[in-house]
Amino acid sequence: MPTHAELRAFPLVGPRPTTLIESVRLSEHLGTEVVLATETFQWTGSFKFRAAYHVATHVTHPAIIAGSSGNFGQAMALACRLTGKRCTIVMPQRSARVKIDAVRGYGATVDLIDTRVMRREARVTELAAENPDAYVASAYDDPLVIAGNASLGYELATSNATVEHPFDAILVPIGGGGLASGVITGLKASGDRTPVWAAEPAAANDFVLSLAAGHIIAQDTEPDTIADGARTRSVGGHNWAILQHGVAGAIPVPEAAIVDAVRLLFGLANLKAEPTGALALAALLAGPERFRHRRVCCVVSGGNVDPALYCELVGAAPR
Amino acid sequence: MPTHAELRAFPLVGPRPTTLIESVRLSEHLGTEVVLATETFQWTGSFKFRAAYHVATHVTHPAIIAGSSGNFGQAMALACRLTGKRCTIVMPQRSARVKIDAVRGYGATVDLIDTRVMRREARVTELAAENPDAYVASAYDDPLVIAGNASLGYELATSNATVEHPFDAILVPIGGGGLASGVITGLKASGDRTPVWAAEPAAANDFVLSLAAGHIIAQDTEPDTIADGARTRSVGGHNWAILQHGVAGAIPVPEAAIVDAVRLLFGLANLKAEPTGALALAALLAGPERFRHRRVCCVVSGGNVDPALYCELVGAAPR
Repeated sequence: MPTHAELRAFPLVGPRPTTLIESVRLSEHLGTEVVLATETFQWTGSFKFRAAYHVATHVTHPAIIAGSSGNFGQAMALACRLTGKRCTIVMPQRSARVKIDAVRGYGATVDLIDTRVMRREARVTELAAENPDAYVASAYDDPLVIAGNASLGYELATSNATVEHPFDAILVPIGGGGLASGVITGLKASGDRTPVWAAEPAAANDFVLSLAAGHIIAQDTEPDTIADGARTRSVGGHNWAILQHGVAGAIPVPEAAIVDAVRLLFGLANLKAEPTGALALAALLAGPERFRHRRVCCVVSGGNVDPALYCELVGAAPR
Repeated sequence: MPTHAELRAFPLVGPRPTTLIESVRLSEHLGTEVVLATETFQWTGSFKFRAAYHVATHVTHPAIIAGSSGNFGQAMALACRLTGKRCTIVMPQRSARVKIDAVRGYGATVDLIDTRVMRREARVTELAAENPDAYVASAYDDPLVIAGNASLGYELATSNATVEHPFDAILVPIGGGGLASGVITGLKASGDRTPVWAAEPAAANDFVLSLAAGHIIAQDTEPDTIADGARTRSVGGHNWAILQHGVAGAIPVPEAAIVDAVRLLFGLANLKAEPTGALALAALLAGPERFRHRRVCCVVSGGNVDPALYCELVGAAPR
């Protein structure tokens, strides 16, 4: 396999613009005009590259350490390669094989841990102590991450400003809150007041609870949901500061709706999405009345999913 | 399910621009800078809508009849609905269920035939005699079809004219030749001389043989290949007139390379493609040396594939 240097320089001058997709059949099925803003074709296959590239180009440290179940790790690995930094990604041993391979493929060192024995954060702290020249990057709770993800908000605002029918609402998956807080930041900076809804697995509903309580509520343990990108115990502090009054609301999404959404994206929109990526569409399925006959942008956050799991989900389709 | 009229007007003002995708991992895997020009997000999920919409907006007949194993049928069904024409699509009974459902979903009448008893062309002729006000649309051998598909050629030429590194070559799947002749027409009209290669299943190599012979050679029977969009007995006469001296060459593609290409698009580019849609990438896999270190555009012609077949192909991945 050739190295990066053996190929002519890729036109990698930062994040790729998001890809806007519409499907007549999907919209008719839902009774809502759905526009998919898909980040599945972002470099490294998820929106996380926006944040990772922003971090890598804005810190002066020669090395970056991050804990990630996959997508942020891939993104940081490529961002570090492009900026000439060393990169170590701490991943749970049970991570999907394709995600571990991808992080290594982009050139990072993978540090596998048994999460039953040691928490990811603890291992990151340990590595940081051993590598004082390294920047420890959070996948979401970091102003640089939010600023990087804000680029998607700018793009959606630009789209809104240039079309006849702007979005009535934007639905965004939420886990740690990095994407939602970034999108809100980018929209606000562009003077765009489109309401942003957060789509959260009902099985990991810390943000729904936090909004109701008026302060961050954290789950005791990492919640179990098929949307593995949303298995966070709570949103981050920096994210909460933006989200608390920045979102129009949060929609709890049943696991079955996530599966349906993955299947509908496959069948009616030809879009391969990972379960977390399908959360926004799943929120539409879970509560269609609120958005009936409106024009709604569903952000598809990523597409990196193991073929076995994917086919289990897609194969569940009635034939 | 709401009717089309119940939704606000879709912004359907003709074909969607193609979607250009790049994947660092795919390019590194191949040793070639691959840019995917994917038509999987075209209205109706394949490039065929370009042709169908052009036909529907350029003939005055109130009805259109076409024989199609699926993608052209879906495209014509939607094009007819948008232009207020009646539409009848003749399909083999053994067509994938999802394709039959889709054609019906767009509002066309589906006429199912047993291809062991009657050829599609014969049934189309029969229907045409019964419906003298109907236009009989060929999926490829029609100047209107070529003119419609030429829009993709214009788009690729525009892309070439506006980037630092234009494509060194463009690879296009070939069956009846409608897409390849259209792309060549569009490029030529734009003054773009990028070589266009036709990627054809080796199991259906009538065009490879035709090029060698200097005249159209037709298979005796419909060839058997997993690339169902390329199961044509020969290219059309209108297509041949453009293709004979218009293509840089034709590349015969083994079935195994088609499967590999579908799997690579899934795994390294998050792109759901149907087997016919993966032909151009498969041609790169089959003969990588010719395009090593070049910047190559692979046209992905469509993405409509039955989940069971798709998962069979993707599941073949080494884990």
